[in-house]
Amino acid sequence: MRVVELAVNLDDVTGEQLGAAIDRLLRAGALDAWATPITMKKGRPAVMLSVLTTEDRRDALAQQLLADTGSFGVRYRAWDRVVLDRATHQRKTELGEIRLKAGSLKGRPIAVKPEFDDVRALADAADISLLQAQRVARAAADNLLDELRKEADRA
Amino acid sequence: MRVVELAVNLDDVTGEQLGAAIDRLLRAGALDAWATPITMKKGRPAVMLSVLTTEDRRDALAQQLLADTGSFGVRYRAWDRVVLDRATHQRKTELGEIRLKAGSLKGRPIAVKPEFDDVRALADAADISLLQAQRVARAAADNLLDELRKEADRA
Amino acid sequence: MRVVELAVNLDDVTGEQLGAAIDRLLRAGALDAWATPITMKKGRPAVMLSVLTTEDRRDALAQQLLADTGSFGVRYRAWDRVVLDRATHQRKTELGEIRLKAGSLKGRPIAVKPEFDDVRALADAADISLLQAQRVARAAADNLLDELRKEADRA
Amino acid sequence: MRVVELAVNLDDVTGEQLGAAIDRLLRAGALDAWATPITMKKGRPAVMLSVLTTEDRRDALAQQLLADTGSFGVRYRAWDRVVLDRATHQRKTELGEIRLKAGSLKGRPIAVKPEFDDVRALADAADISLLQAQRVARAAADNLLDELRKEADRA
Amino acid sequence: MRVVELAVNLDDVTGEQLGAAIDRLLRAGALDAWATPITMKKGRPAVMLSVLTTEDRRDALAQQLLADTGSFGVRYRAWDRVVLDRATHQRKTELGEIRLKAGSLKGRPIAVKPEFDDVRALADAADISLLQAQRVARAAADNLLDELRKEADRA
Amino acid sequence: MRVVELAVNLDDVTGEQLGAAIDRLLRAGALDAWATPITMKKGRPAVMLSVLTTEDRRDALAQQLLADTGSFGVRYRAWDRVVLDRATHQRKTELGEIRLKAGSLKGRPIAVKPEFDDVRALADAADISLLQAQRVARAAADNLLDELRKEADRA
Repeated sequence: MRVVELAVNLDDVTGEQLGAAIDRLLRAGALDAWATPITMKKGRPAVMLSVLTTEDRRDALAQQLLADTGSFGVRYRAWDRVVLDRATHQRKTELGEIRLKAGSLKGRPIAVKPEFDDVRALADAADISLLQAQRVARAAADNLLDELRKEADRA
Repeated sequence: MRVVELAVNLDDVTGEQLGAAIDRLLRAGALDAWATPITMKKGRPAVMLSVLTTEDRRDALAQQLLADTGSFGVRYRAWDRVVLDRATHQRKTELGEIRLKAGSLKGRPIAVKPEFDDVRALADAADISLLQAQRVARAAADNLLDELRKEADRA
Repeated sequence: MRVVELAVNLDDVTGEQLGAAIDRLLRAGALDAWATPITMKKGRPAVMLSVLTTEDRRDALAQQLLADTGSFGVRYRAWDRVVLDRATHQRKTELGEIRLKAGSLKGRPIAVKPEFDDVRALADAADISLLQAQRVARAAADNLLDELRKEADRA
Repeated sequence: MRVVELAVNLDDVTGEQLGAAIDRLLRAGALDAWATPITMKKGRPAVMLSVLTTEDRRDALAQQLLADTGSFGVRYRAWDRVVLDRATHQRKTELGEIRLKAGSLKGRPIAVKPEFDDVRALADAADISLLQAQRVARAAADNLLDELRKEADRA
Repeated sequence: MRVVELAVNLDDVTGEQLGAAIDRLLRAGALDAWATPITMKKGRPAVMLSVLTTEDRRDALAQQLLADTGSFGVRYRAWDRVVLDRATHQRKTELGEIRLKAGSLKGRPIAVKPEFDDVRALADAADISLLQAQRVARAAADNLLDELRKEADRA
Repeated sequence: MRVVELAVNLDDVTGEQLGAAIDRLLRAGALDAWATPITMKKGRPAVMLSVLTTEDRRDALAQQLLADTGSFGVRYRAWDRVVLDRATHQRKTELGEIRLKAGSLKGRPIAVKPEFDDVRALADAADISLLQAQRVARAAADNLLDELRKEADRA
């Protein structure tokens, strides 16, 4: 399944602008957006801003990227992808509810990972360390992976 | 005026954990916290996590850092600082109110910068680009700097 | 409009060589050239050198890149681009003349940015800070953007 | 407890040299050694090489650093440290034996982490993924942490 | 000659995992594998893991990458390449034997580079600095380049 | 011999500004100045700007740094240094004259390195690759190191 990558090299925007531009691109529907530190001409410590998007959102996101950064151009090209099928599961833990993201390929469950924002929220709410909250979340994720594998074996 | 820098090199935490650890350190009173990409032994792409704090918060933040990252130690040392005197001013713009941060040294105004979160909020609210919002905010900041300089000259 | 990207991963060249190789590629007609820090095998802190070029300059720049870096191969692929139409305008400021780069899309002016080398030169000549010189240059750029928009509205 | 940090900025060594220099410093007794990507003058994408050492090894490691990199100087200064007390425990898992590193502060167990080289070896030997091997190792680490906490509570 | 690049953005793996994942991909036949530091959403300091492979190994390496990192997808696309013809030569030096890698294009010798692992081994064995070992290796490489050029001229 | 390091974390300056600020600091007498990519709060891809200076230039360079970047503070602390004694030698090569930098410790010659700007200039003037120019320069450097060692042995 294809996605489009947009990229611009920026030596005339600030970190504040970049952080906000990335966030706004994600809110506008980008699949992903990130910054890579680079060294450009004239000794400029700069950044390459990259965006992944479905083809139908490409033009709109390119326009937004140009408008938010003042860049004079944006390059783009397509990638193919191998993607796992995803499902989100809600689970109770001793600290509270968390969302678990499950990925499978051709019906075979491959991995389950906690939604980290929920791990963070549980740590804050219980006033415990991130490590302690992660341990609880991981146990839930491991249990779900085992469940999903048993189901797949029976199917 | 002295500050303490805490630092740990981490090859066994994830980006999610680092982002959350940085945010929790700031909420716990750190003056600043950031991550630097490094290459550690055995070809590990890792991160150095750094924190700036006043001396009185040093022990508490060191404990939090150890608990949130699982690091087995944290190093620290003091820096001296030259700091501008800061004041925050509220100003109206055609897009709405923004906070402007003014810095001066020995009574002489040096710089005025918009609070970027407000620039971002104005852009979102007016549905305009970050560049457009920044232009308005900068005009307000430049005007305030001129005002403050006139006041300082009269004083 | 298409461009070609050339890329090589380099763990056997120095920073001095990389800086010079980038500069020579730009002088030889590359549209852009930059370095990205990466971690390669065997724990080597290395660099990925990237070049953007028009298709007609691809072979010559690839040869130059191989000769200047000693790399045993270079990979390349094409990108499509959305580019603004560019024009350079000369404007007088209280500090001297500067070049302003204007970008427009389908006749609509999108952004105007000062040529930074000129901002730097004005700061050096007037013995003022970069921030002070940038303020003057930005005012000129903002004025030009307003001018160009009025012209476009009339057209 | 104090450690010394040595640092040099290098724009005239290659990634191969840096990787080897770091490895040799560790073999010669450095507590840690790492590389940070930086941008130096003249647009050179360069590296800052840092070493942590006990004070008694400082001069010997500084000499080795100069000899291996050709740098014309090395800067150094001391840090204080908060360190956990460490112990290594051997544990059996369904995949084989692994070493677990336990850290405690004032008798209170804080964290237990698998020695990752062992996780890697188990994955290779059993021809399973790193994630699968990590899950087994983490279970052993979590169990050990619980054991150590029970012991500490009884004490 | 075409190669395929696989890429994933990872904010939920550790440096230890990344280092091991890269090494295992190389052992499984990847032409190259590296990590690039990036900043992802939510302030996460993360890494982009990239792999170069021939087309016939693409699916197997993509599966291994997904299994070792827990990523829910991997993107890929093809590159064309200009590659030098390579040959490895064994040469005696005053410090011992080293392998020299020679690259040529259309019969014209372009560059000869020492195999750095051998430079490292000679330095360790003779208990001399990396610079001293490199000097000896480079002399051998320069001599071989001259030899190969003479041969090519005669041919 | 002591030096002072100044450092600021900057999320509100552009790459253009940083490149120019670094250059101006070097022209104003800084021993060294560089930029390190970091991730700061709120997902901002930012930069830490560092300067090394003798103690007598510290205040002037701190003021310049504040003025050129608009930072509201700069931290500083001292380092000790081990430095080689340096001398610059002029040598003729088949391509032209180059400067060679020689470093020694307690009368013992440690390393000789070509001044890279001269290597670059020779390559441009002779229209040859950087590698070819470097080979000639290195031969001159190696010869000078041998000369200096013989002199030191006789002394």
